[in-house]
Amino acid sequence: MTPATLQSSTHSTSTREAYEQLLAHIREAGLIGGVGAVLSWDQETMMPDGGVDYRGKQFALLARIGHQMSTTPRIGEWLAQCESDKAFMNGGSAECAQVREIRRDYDRETKLPETLVSELAEISSKAQHEWAEARKANDFARFRPWLEKLVTLNRSKASCLGVPSGGEPWDALADTFEPGCTAASVTKVFTPLREQLRKLLCDLAAGSKKPSNLFNETALPVDAQMKFSRMVVQAIGFDFQRGRLDTSTHPFCGGSHCGDVRLTTRFTETCLNDALGSSMHEAGHGMYEQGLLAASIGTPLGTAVSLGIHESQSRLWENQVGRSRSFWSWCAPKLSSSFGTATDSFTLDALYGAANIVEPGFIRVDADEATYNMHVMVRFELERLLIDGSLEPKDLPAEWNRLYREYLNIIVPDDRRGCLQDVHWSMGAFGYFPTYTLGTLYAAQFFDAAKRAIPGLEAGFAHGEFKPLLEWLNREIHAHGRRYLPAELCERVTGSPLSSECYLKYLEGKLRPLYGA
Amino acid sequence: MTPATLQSSTHSTSTREAYEQLLAHIREAGLIGGVGAVLSWDQETMMPDGGVDYRGKQFALLARIGHQMSTTPRIGEWLAQCESDKAFMNGGSAECAQVREIRRDYDRETKLPETLVSELAEISSKAQHEWAEARKANDFARFRPWLEKLVTLNRSKASCLGVPSGGEPWDALADTFEPGCTAASVTKVFTPLREQLRKLLCDLAAGSKKPSNLFNETALPVDAQMKFSRMVVQAIGFDFQRGRLDTSTHPFCGGSHCGDVRLTTRFTETCLNDALGSSMHEAGHGMYEQGLLAASIGTPLGTAVSLGIHESQSRLWENQVGRSRSFWSWCAPKLSSSFGTATDSFTLDALYGAANIVEPGFIRVDADEATYNMHVMVRFELERLLIDGSLEPKDLPAEWNRLYREYLNIIVPDDRRGCLQDVHWSMGAFGYFPTYTLGTLYAAQFFDAAKRAIPGLEAGFAHGEFKPLLEWLNREIHAHGRRYLPAELCERVTGSPLSSECYLKYLEGKLRPLYGA
Repeated sequence: MTPATLQSSTHSTSTREAYEQLLAHIREAGLIGGVGAVLSWDQETMMPDGGVDYRGKQFALLARIGHQMSTTPRIGEWLAQCESDKAFMNGGSAECAQVREIRRDYDRETKLPETLVSELAEISSKAQHEWAEARKANDFARFRPWLEKLVTLNRSKASCLGVPSGGEPWDALADTFEPGCTAASVTKVFTPLREQLRKLLCDLAAGSKKPSNLFNETALPVDAQMKFSRMVVQAIGFDFQRGRLDTSTHPFCGGSHCGDVRLTTRFTETCLNDALGSSMHEAGHGMYEQGLLAASIGTPLGTAVSLGIHESQSRLWENQVGRSRSFWSWCAPKLSSSFGTATDSFTLDALYGAANIVEPGFIRVDADEATYNMHVMVRFELERLLIDGSLEPKDLPAEWNRLYREYLNIIVPDDRRGCLQDVHWSMGAFGYFPTYTLGTLYAAQFFDAAKRAIPGLEAGFAHGEFKPLLEWLNREIHAHGRRYLPAELCERVTGSPLSSECYLKYLEGKLRPLYGA
Repeated sequence: MTPATLQSSTHSTSTREAYEQLLAHIREAGLIGGVGAVLSWDQETMMPDGGVDYRGKQFALLARIGHQMSTTPRIGEWLAQCESDKAFMNGGSAECAQVREIRRDYDRETKLPETLVSELAEISSKAQHEWAEARKANDFARFRPWLEKLVTLNRSKASCLGVPSGGEPWDALADTFEPGCTAASVTKVFTPLREQLRKLLCDLAAGSKKPSNLFNETALPVDAQMKFSRMVVQAIGFDFQRGRLDTSTHPFCGGSHCGDVRLTTRFTETCLNDALGSSMHEAGHGMYEQGLLAASIGTPLGTAVSLGIHESQSRLWENQVGRSRSFWSWCAPKLSSSFGTATDSFTLDALYGAANIVEPGFIRVDADEATYNMHVMVRFELERLLIDGSLEPKDLPAEWNRLYREYLNIIVPDDRRGCLQDVHWSMGAFGYFPTYTLGTLYAAQFFDAAKRAIPGLEAGFAHGEFKPLLEWLNREIHAHGRRYLPAELCERVTGSPLSSECYLKYLEGKLRPLYGA
């Protein structure tokens, strides 16, 4: 029982009982999700190849059990009883928010047939493995049949969920990741942002100076990079008593609840900034998960509100913190303990500059802050068309390459560095990508609010003082879980609705001086 | 559908349908067991401390779901239909064996209330964590309340399962690990064996020579030991495409099916033989699991027949292979590639001798072949009394230490090296330990049969020829799953019922010459 549920007691006993039973049931259904999350992590980090098929069947069964538990008509009865009790539902209480969010989930889940849920789980487990192999072999043809299956299944899913009037099938999928998100609303943000970013990129390319990339080309042993990344992740506040950090092909944050959060990152011999950026990024996700209240585990109030808000936490730690001059002024003297003399020659200016190189490239997760959103926009355009049915999976590589040329003016050399680079579609996640850019915008706006609330925030980074920021995020964002919808949360935390203003100001304020532009 | 199920078709269609539905259901229920197995492995190797409580709840829910799936009355109906069809049940077919074994499981599971199953799962998950902490801190008092809970729950379990007439509560628990095993039958084997081993130990202690222990005292880097263990495990036939090897406090073999088998071992700076012995032991278990037929996954014919037979496979590779002179003659020249010059001074005689040191000690998993069974006998006596109610958990340390003095003539210095050393009771497993000694006897008897069947078997080890043995085990033992009960399997494979004759002959034949006794 959470402290919140103990507070109000103005409603009838039977509604209270219905509510408690509802919550107990939801918590139990949540256990299955947690089990699936650990198995997903295991599949990406530990499982031998021989486990693929059976793991797919395990996921399919868990998905079916989870779906049954989430759609049992008793939930509908409990919800109806709570909703019909005006005294209980009064006043924006924690209980109201729980009931509202459980209703949202229940209505969505009951629209999906069990066979579809189970099939999606099994196919996407196998497809992830096929994707990893196809990517390794630079072989789109190997992945194509799986992509086709997943597009078909997601089109069915969208049709079951129902396309909102005036909307398109993609909207139904996106709403499961970001409540209220539509292709139209995304386009409204993305189109002007693309023009502003294009202008900034032109200006930077024509700037009077350019930071040196030398630090990013310095080979540093992978073991030492892991040790260093672990130190940084711990210093910024990720709790290793309640989590771990491993390596995987595609960095991610998984785990089953706030007491067991699992980050992965990846290493190459050169470019510590890649590994560090990935590690801090995933740690940002991880600290959100660890900041959810243990008392609310398994219920909406103990669950992250949306992927956009989730991404704001990872971006904020990766960029606003990890690419700031004050962070590097803390970081720089610590390099030698991991890397010996190999990093001695780099000044603070050189390190700060190297963390902020802008250079159009092929790989989204390696992209700098200024080009990153272009990668997202490409994926958004394409998945919208795939789900709409107007782009066939077989034509994906050509369209992908065409858009990269248009948006970033680069020629994609192969599918491994093109449309095979991301895990998301193989996981069956369509409508997910735009949350990366929404998160980027939220991050800048949240950081702006944090700076106003905490005097000397950025200066403190130079002394390793990351705790004030984490505590502010814990209090303002993490502790609420799904109590407020993303738009309301943004207004409560920052005083304004989401816009790209803070982001562009932050980005231009940092990059123009570095590039003399 | 397995090849076996395709063969016979003399029965009515409806029985065939019932059988297929039964098998599909059993396979599905088996998925839940596999999920639990991966989570157990994860808990012992990967899970951060903060995951303990929630993991316990996850296990409890999975146990409840698994129990529901294994006890649904439809199983009883399908079984009854198959059993009443004489044409179908005729002739010792694969189907007969499946039906017989599913019946055994169903009758057992339906005797256990869901609450007990779920409580045992949750408590034993937490107790394992508490045990690991208590062992680290040498603090029996910390573990005691958990032991008390587990003894109480297991006494309830025994009473639900029903004590066979003339038997005792322990028998009901042991039967779940080793069909047909009773305290009386174990005592009948253990009592004379103890006397024979005691005599052998006396003779060895008074022998005219003693192998040098120097190799076991040589410090070798843990990383290199891991690399070497991995090489050996792969060479003897463990398939890393379908498995992995990690470290944990207590070595074990886990995983969810023949395509995903997970071994753990442990390392100390000195004593490569400990790590190697544990690795080969667990690989023996692992190769049994990998040798089960993929087509029968999740059904009795795709499942190991008993813990005693399982242990025969681990013991056989650890001892009959791993402590043989011919194995070391293959192994010796390979040491330098992992350990450089540190092992150069050891002759084949010295290595073979060091692998066969007999020395009473405190730790079961470190014990040599001659004293090992004494450790098992201590545990058997004590758990029998705990489950009987005539020994209280609080008195366990004193009784443990008394028996070690009586059986091995040593004074246990602390509980960490005494009654806290093993994970089994914390996992809620009572009635398990004797299967170690049964397995030791089976191993010797199987190896004797293998030598008769494969000319030059042992000599081949010297050239790295381990495949003939593995293929023989695959064919004679692994491929059958639970088709034959342990006693029948033993007679089929070796031509005789289980006895300690082969074991004592093997042991004396090796140790007396080494010790001049």
